Amino acid sequence: VSETAADYENTWNFYYERPCCAGNDQPNGHGKHNRDHVREFTCGRLYYRTFHMNEDRDSLYVGAMDRVFRLNLQNISSSYCDRDVINLEPTRDDVVSCVSKGKSQVFDCKNHVRVIQSMEQGDRLYVCGTNAHNPKDYVIYSNLTHLPRSEYVIGVGLGIAKCPYDPLDNSTAIYVENGNPGGLPGLYSGTNAEFTKADTVIFRTDLYNTSAKRLEYKFKRTLKYDSKWLDKPNFVGSFDIGDYVYFFFRETAVEYINCGKAVYSRIARVCKKDVGGKNLLAHNWATYLKARLNCSISGEFPFYFNEIQSVYQLPSDKTRFYATFTTSTNGLIGSAVCSFHINEIQAAFNGKFKEQSSSNSAWLPVLNSRVPEPRPGTCVNDTSNLPDTVLNFIRSHPLMDKAVNHEHNNPVYYKRDLVFTKLVVDKIKIDILNQEYIVYYVGTNLGRIYKIVQYYRNGESLSKLLDIFEVAPNEAIQVMEISQTRKSLYIGTDHRIKQIDLAMCNRRYDNCFRCVRDPYCGWDKEANTCRPYELDLLQYIETTERGLVVVSVNEADGGRYDCHLGGSLLCSYNITVDAHRCTPPNKSNDY
Amino acid sequence: VSETAADYENTWNFYYERPCCAGNDQPNGHGKHNRDHVREFTCGRLYYRTFHMNEDRDSLYVGAMDRVFRLNLQNISSSYCDRDVINLEPTRDDVVSCVSKGKSQVFDCKNHVRVIQSMEQGDRLYVCGTNAHNPKDYVIYSNLTHLPRSEYVIGVGLGIAKCPYDPLDNSTAIYVENGNPGGLPGLYSGTNAEFTKADTVIFRTDLYNTSAKRLEYKFKRTLKYDSKWLDKPNFVGSFDIGDYVYFFFRETAVEYINCGKAVYSRIARVCKKDVGGKNLLAHNWATYLKARLNCSISGEFPFYFNEIQSVYQLPSDKTRFYATFTTSTNGLIGSAVCSFHINEIQAAFNGKFKEQSSSNSAWLPVLNSRVPEPRPGTCVNDTSNLPDTVLNFIRSHPLMDKAVNHEHNNPVYYKRDLVFTKLVVDKIKIDILNQEYIVYYVGTNLGRIYKIVQYYRNGESLSKLLDIFEVAPNEAIQVMEISQTRKSLYIGTDHRIKQIDLAMCNRRYDNCFRCVRDPYCGWDKEANTCRPYELDLLQYIETTERGLVVVSVNEADGGRYDCHLGGSLLCSYNITVDAHRCTPPNKSNDY
Repeated sequence: VSETAADYENTWNFYYERPCCAGNDQPNGHGKHNRDHVREFTCGRLYYRTFHMNEDRDSLYVGAMDRVFRLNLQNISSSYCDRDVINLEPTRDDVVSCVSKGKSQVFDCKNHVRVIQSMEQGDRLYVCGTNAHNPKDYVIYSNLTHLPRSEYVIGVGLGIAKCPYDPLDNSTAIYVENGNPGGLPGLYSGTNAEFTKADTVIFRTDLYNTSAKRLEYKFKRTLKYDSKWLDKPNFVGSFDIGDYVYFFFRETAVEYINCGKAVYSRIARVCKKDVGGKNLLAHNWATYLKARLNCSISGEFPFYFNEIQSVYQLPSDKTRFYATFTTSTNGLIGSAVCSFHINEIQAAFNGKFKEQSSSNSAWLPVLNSRVPEPRPGTCVNDTSNLPDTVLNFIRSHPLMDKAVNHEHNNPVYYKRDLVFTKLVVDKIKIDILNQEYIVYYVGTNLGRIYKIVQYYRNGESLSKLLDIFEVAPNEAIQVMEISQTRKSLYIGTDHRIKQIDLAMCNRRYDNCFRCVRDPYCGWDKEANTCRPYELDLLQYIETTERGLVVVSVNEADGGRYDCHLGGSLLCSYNITVDAHRCTPPNKSNDY
Repeated sequence: VSETAADYENTWNFYYERPCCAGNDQPNGHGKHNRDHVREFTCGRLYYRTFHMNEDRDSLYVGAMDRVFRLNLQNISSSYCDRDVINLEPTRDDVVSCVSKGKSQVFDCKNHVRVIQSMEQGDRLYVCGTNAHNPKDYVIYSNLTHLPRSEYVIGVGLGIAKCPYDPLDNSTAIYVENGNPGGLPGLYSGTNAEFTKADTVIFRTDLYNTSAKRLEYKFKRTLKYDSKWLDKPNFVGSFDIGDYVYFFFRETAVEYINCGKAVYSRIARVCKKDVGGKNLLAHNWATYLKARLNCSISGEFPFYFNEIQSVYQLPSDKTRFYATFTTSTNGLIGSAVCSFHINEIQAAFNGKFKEQSSSNSAWLPVLNSRVPEPRPGTCVNDTSNLPDTVLNFIRSHPLMDKAVNHEHNNPVYYKRDLVFTKLVVDKIKIDILNQEYIVYYVGTNLGRIYKIVQYYRNGESLSKLLDIFEVAPNEAIQVMEISQTRKSLYIGTDHRIKQIDLAMCNRRYDNCFRCVRDPYCGWDKEANTCRPYELDLLQYIETTERGLVVVSVNEADGGRYDCHLGGSLLCSYNITVDAHRCTPPNKSNDY
């Protein structure tokens, strides 16, 4: 068993490292780090589910029930419920109509803000809310004031297809200002566009010449009621990269129906320049493609984590997506984190298409000779000039044959009996070791954060669970954000928002072994304490000693180690672990 | 959540009831029950893998490496290694040839006995062993002596297709004396018939008129190298019921290939009267059918336990099969016990056939109008008279469309992180309660026995884990048997055979709650002890008290219980649990 395999295998075992400084005597489950390392903001149970961070303005915008808050990114607990807020309550008429449809007055028939996006370098915000099952959008100033009537933004007011009717629906949206037809800004969204939930869409709003207040390009959407395009999707993210906007979601797997029923995870993309077809697909995307996302444990019979729950990109690196996946909740439950490289995504979109040529056929790859030119799904200057062969093909072949492979051919991390919800990721470089670390902060449905580090050693990806924080016991983590400038993690649940320092060294680690595994921390030999990393402190993940890699030992690991190759003993170590000394033994015969 | 659902859900949680009488101070993990309740027989590490029980002769025959033992069913530890044995070592030539093919001399090139079957009311035994990768069969007397040369049995000597080459291969066999063509006896087997493992078969031996020593009917087998008939099967059991012999196995699922790679569990059947076709299928079964066995947790997305590991029938009830299943061992691991009724099996075999009409087609049901007459797979007097249409159909359509459903639409029991190996089942009726209990003894790969009781209450199947015995720590339980006459359970591992009393009341249960749940036991109020059930003892699984079903309470369950219907409080109980008194409270205001 290689070290990696063993590491992965262990993740199926129950493994809970008690944080060193969280005692059982704390009734609320938080450790003493709560005082300095964790800050909180709450104005009651307002279902804090949408974050939009603007580091330039040192602000975290939070979409909640009937409200958008603007929190101080440095210290969220210095913000105020009544001052740092804009109220966006639905009108009385909207509420009456909503209640008359049998929805709950205290939850469903409120205005749950689901989209907050920056416009014009953050001067204004685009906001969309469920508005008592009558979705509505807004443009406001980033200081949370309404625009004057004179600055009315054309096309804004009706939120249908931009955010959902039902606050429980998963949706995604991204405001794109560059690369669209005519260079006009517009919102790309993935959501439910009907009260009955029958119509799910990937959508781009009408594009206006805002100064002339003139409609230039009509909205574009996925084909209506076509299960090949979308089948009961749950959207989890959207990204503007180069010529494309990418959407991440899970949906019923149309290609699996002959084998049962399953949900698959997908990545879809559209060209930003897409203006639809001329006669065919006039209101629809002419460049819509989708592919399965594969997050699985490799093997003769791969074990799939089929249901994507969230996706994240580092602001500094547009080449990778990090995502959480779960199994179906019937039966054995588990969760995983996988990463995807943009090259693998392009490979899937540049590969074969998939089709079911008749209702009795299997889903099979389409022969290249049957794919028309220009290749369906590539960006062209004017999609309305595309020949009908191409439009017809894409209409019936949105699905790619090959799944997008995850990096390292295995999840970065997986664990049974957990439901991962959201994640964010940080990247750290320790120059003296010439080592880069990816740190994953993964939230669960029970209010914990799993802190996982991933790095490369000899070209192989390794990952380790560093710590588990209990930030909001038994509350699902609904949303997460991370700030490099403030070195903080922000999480939202239905009840509260919390801010957590990324480096929590002396509060979490009381011995050097756990301390030095965390790339944010280093061990101060003089003071015998764990501190945020600086040059003088001990910092290493592994020590290589005569070919024996000593990884993350602790006191229980002390004892005699024999190293075999085949059947013969190569070498033998007696390892004495002194958690407080944290230095190699002085006498050479200790080895 | 209904009680059943909760019960099933609980089985995903870690749950280990420490037997009351097994202390931690026992170094070998056995409790004090070891002394009286558990008996052992071993002659060293001889890979005890085949049991054949004959209660009339009070014998348990055990197939092991190079040996067959005959153990005293009443007390296996009263048997002797050197007296109650027949040695069946391979010849020196066989060993030399085996070793020259690269096989291990200490294990592979031994004669591992894999078949022991009674012949002629148990006067003789049919035995087959791997014989140093050169399978060989024998007929011996049931007192473990060789036949004299004069009683030579024709057709016996070459074991190919009767038992495997490789001792690690799973195989099955059953000796059938009635119902075969000409009323002649023969062995039905499922095994590997080639050294290279390329040829797997379901097989019936040549049928001889043994007195005239004349071959009457040539062997019959599944179509060679046809993955539709068998694809890398692992056989786990075979049964002679009515006109058919049934085989249980798992194999690569040919109908799943468009969706990935999977193993499915199967039941197959052949007519005992089958003599093959005339020109087509002359050496093959003309009545071979197979169907998928479904053992799954029901739901919108059912969770399947795809890999059957063993199957058992009660001697007194030929209408049900009980089987253990596991998931694939990659990823999340779990095991389940499912039961199948013969009517559901017949329904699958009488239903539609499945086909892939061309290599690009999906696997779909065959229209009834396309099924020839007489219906393929039904027993006819002479299959060599079947028309070619029927033979051609069965040649290409051995697979049924519908899976065999398990009883209760859910497993009897399931649990994660366990690998169930073998099982046996007992049935108990407690007349005074007019209640029947099915008790499952399920072995694991780590030497534990899970004792599970299943019964019906208001038409609903309920099941509970009663006890977990550690009978052979960290040794896989390879074979199990149960004797009604001796009220004992027998298990075999590579190292030993153990005999365990079915009723282990006072050794396992020190309080009445656990005692009375076990249908073998009852609580003696006078002596305050748990004893094998008799009429005077307390015995119940549940007490119904004013609509509140009090199930298996223990001291930790004491306290106040409120019973709500909708939002309103119906009634309220203060439950005081006295584990040693085990009687209802005397004062009525205790309720």
